[in-house]
Amino acid sequence: MTDAMYASSIPVFKQMLGGLAAILAKAEAHAAEKNIDVTALTQARLFPDMFPMRRQVQIACDFARGVSARLAGAEVPKYEDQEQSFAELRELIERTLGFIGGFGPAQFEGAAGREIVTRPGTPKERRFDGQTYLLSYGLPQFFFHVTTAYALLRHNGVEIGKRDYMGQY
Amino acid sequence: MTDAMYASSIPVFKQMLGGLAAILAKAEAHAAEKNIDVTALTQARLFPDMFPMRRQVQIACDFARGVSARLAGAEVPKYEDQEQSFAELRELIERTLGFIGGFGPAQFEGAAGREIVTRPGTPKERRFDGQTYLLSYGLPQFFFHVTTAYALLRHNGVEIGKRDYMGQY
Repeated sequence: MTDAMYASSIPVFKQMLGGLAAILAKAEAHAAEKNIDVTALTQARLFPDMFPMRRQVQIACDFARGVSARLAGAEVPKYEDQEQSFAELRELIERTLGFIGGFGPAQFEGAAGREIVTRPGTPKERRFDGQTYLLSYGLPQFFFHVTTAYALLRHNGVEIGKRDYMGQY
Repeated sequence: MTDAMYASSIPVFKQMLGGLAAILAKAEAHAAEKNIDVTALTQARLFPDMFPMRRQVQIACDFARGVSARLAGAEVPKYEDQEQSFAELRELIERTLGFIGGFGPAQFEGAAGREIVTRPGTPKERRFDGQTYLLSYGLPQFFFHVTTAYALLRHNGVEIGKRDYMGQY
């Protein structure tokens, strides 16, 4: 069970965030080549009341860090989420990969049964065991934001394919 | 390990496909209310060389069935993928839920170590153990298509939110 909880989180986050970093590099190169103001991509939205691309990347990273930390019983780090440029977003992914890379299977011992409380003390407070938290909440949320970042760039003409999204596996 | 492989697949597919079916129902109601030709939604694309919405739903269902069957060592069923209308797409989800609902934890015994071969006999042939296949390939693919279907409908003004995407959990 320990192995499964670790295998279902850290390596998955690493794979997908690695893919996302490569996608952002392609998007930046695309903008340079076509003389596109990078904010046309970093601030792109699929609908006016949806988050822009840069925020999708930040939230994906936030879930990767938060889910990993909670499962490991570690403190969830607070990041400022001030990133605007592609370089800053890639740096954010690097920092996030560095943070989650600090966890190994040993820290995930007992993670499946660990009680996780999200939004504690608020009306939206929810309690999960670790396995449910990861599979029913953390992974769906993480994949949502990675895919939406991809969809936003693809929608705006960046030449990427599902292979880029899938990362190295 | 058995429990983990089952828990990381069938219930996740059920949760997300349930959410997707509810999203499709909202999209259909939205089209009726606004007098929108439903094909404006079912055939919507985020970019000309991406698959349309209806195909995203079909592929999501295809991964749910294929991944479940392969992990259980069962035959992957062939579906015709002829669905065009919202009703047909919801029916497809129902059939898919029926199919994957036929698997229990017992069928997933040994699934983590089972050898899975995708696109056998082609230049794209790949071999995985079951755990890697599920976590590095099956889940990322499945979430990609569910999220893209959601993004397409959201982009086209259907009033849905991430809560709809998340389904019941």
